[in-house]
Amino acid sequence: MQDVSSLVEQAREGRPRAVARLISLVEGASPQLREVMAALAPFTGRAYVVGITGSPGVGKSTSTSALVSAYRRTGKRVGVLAVDPSSPFSGGALLGDRVRMAEHASDPGVYIRSMATRGHLGGLAWAAPQAIRVLDAAGCDVVLVETVGVGQSEVDIASQADTSVVLLAPGMGDGIQAAKAGILEIGDVYVVNKADRDGADATARELNHMLGLGEAREPGDWRPPIVKTVAARGEGVDEVVAALEKHRAWMDEHGVLADRRVARAAHEIETIAVTALRARMLDVRGDHRVAALAARVVEGELSPYQAADDVLSRL
Amino acid sequence: MQDVSSLVEQAREGRPRAVARLISLVEGASPQLREVMAALAPFTGRAYVVGITGSPGVGKSTSTSALVSAYRRTGKRVGVLAVDPSSPFSGGALLGDRVRMAEHASDPGVYIRSMATRGHLGGLAWAAPQAIRVLDAAGCDVVLVETVGVGQSEVDIASQADTSVVLLAPGMGDGIQAAKAGILEIGDVYVVNKADRDGADATARELNHMLGLGEAREPGDWRPPIVKTVAARGEGVDEVVAALEKHRAWMDEHGVLADRRVARAAHEIETIAVTALRARMLDVRGDHRVAALAARVVEGELSPYQAADDVLSRL
Repeated sequence: MQDVSSLVEQAREGRPRAVARLISLVEGASPQLREVMAALAPFTGRAYVVGITGSPGVGKSTSTSALVSAYRRTGKRVGVLAVDPSSPFSGGALLGDRVRMAEHASDPGVYIRSMATRGHLGGLAWAAPQAIRVLDAAGCDVVLVETVGVGQSEVDIASQADTSVVLLAPGMGDGIQAAKAGILEIGDVYVVNKADRDGADATARELNHMLGLGEAREPGDWRPPIVKTVAARGEGVDEVVAALEKHRAWMDEHGVLADRRVARAAHEIETIAVTALRARMLDVRGDHRVAALAARVVEGELSPYQAADDVLSRL
Repeated sequence: MQDVSSLVEQAREGRPRAVARLISLVEGASPQLREVMAALAPFTGRAYVVGITGSPGVGKSTSTSALVSAYRRTGKRVGVLAVDPSSPFSGGALLGDRVRMAEHASDPGVYIRSMATRGHLGGLAWAAPQAIRVLDAAGCDVVLVETVGVGQSEVDIASQADTSVVLLAPGMGDGIQAAKAGILEIGDVYVVNKADRDGADATARELNHMLGLGEAREPGDWRPPIVKTVAARGEGVDEVVAALEKHRAWMDEHGVLADRRVARAAHEIETIAVTALRARMLDVRGDHRVAALAARVVEGELSPYQAADDVLSRL
């Protein structure tokens, strides 16, 4: 095991292997993380964190890759974290992501990392912010966090970004389905990808309607823009970057960025604390006490609340 | 507020209003739940709990409705819980579900309930099992738990079912997307719905391949069946019920059902305990201590671990 302080030093110099090693420590929930995060703390808070979410099939990986290219053209250093909250069992990321990102593999100004949590107790809510800290301290100007699928985990991760981009594509389901997906509450910027396909205008119109963008807002309120792209050909991607920068400027102006970051840190602190408490609870489970209580709940002898009281009394 | 014991008594007699009232107590995280769950405990553990999941657009509501009809033809009492983990903000369920279930609205042998958690601390992992307990104690032979979207929440909820059904439909994305969705690890029964559409055979074949169903298994292992349906016309739905009953019989034979239920109760106990601990932590947050710590984390003065230590020391 390499010395933590030299690893942190190398990561700060932007050495890819040190960055990769630190993120592996996050994935593996290493006990050394406590020391790593203390060493990184003074060098964090500089990166602009952009969350990218949307249903499978809308072209998230392609769009992320196109955004990387666009930011690279402006000379920014870019980190990409592709997280997969829906596959806690298999662990590791699928080849597909890496293939689609291959064009950036040899660019020293880009870090790309796929991450799964391999069933770690705290899940991605625990791991993603720490991986973002690593990329931030490594000098990334922008960190793109791409999440797979739509669900509570994505909403949680969106709440950890400075700006959330929600991707849609024509023909991915009707309005009710979109609303079900809960995406209408989390986007700061909406992108209708595959805009060369039939139905793109209708999707944008429907989205506009569902977002209530026609309604009057308070002066100074953020009005989420809807940008049409064909990410596979790079079309509209500079407009997405412009929308992101505009949102960032709006947040700065209204103090929203600072508020979001404090809320994000509060969530991160809480998640680390809860995970530590759950680990203590698993110690209780380890000696079969919870299993015995669970069997009594199944038999109807105890309610789950009575069993939980017993567990808590032993912490 | 109605007396809890009379409410529980009426729910056990199958009175819909009492059942609805108890599930509302779950949704609202009522302090009375402790008493309700203690009163219900002796009458639980009888229902067969089937989880139904899949991406938006595969026809989950239609399939659930068709399964209700199929079970009703065999005289079973059926409970339906449509949960929406992806929309923590807006709360409540969308009209769409109710509309699609309307054919069962007047059947006294069917309870249908859409549920959101309205931002409750423990989320659906906390609420769903308790709502299932209510339906179970109310005499439902089968409880169908339909979840929206695909993600960690769905995986969690699938782990709370006796049998998990994963729905797919032709043309909903390629194999990599299906694998990303993490569905290949959670299904006990797979259903390819909209099987009258082009590509249904290809979807079933690809699924068969990805599940490794061609590979040798240990004798006695469960081999997840793939059933093709056109739920909107009721086609193949009896075959789904047959596959469910076969899985249930297999679980009984191999002691898997008892193991799953104990694991489920252990998870439920842990969730209630963790939720109680998080509530205590929010009390700490309430006096702005966590916000102050979070601001120091944002400034890089503290690592999130150091801040979490401070929170834990005050619990």
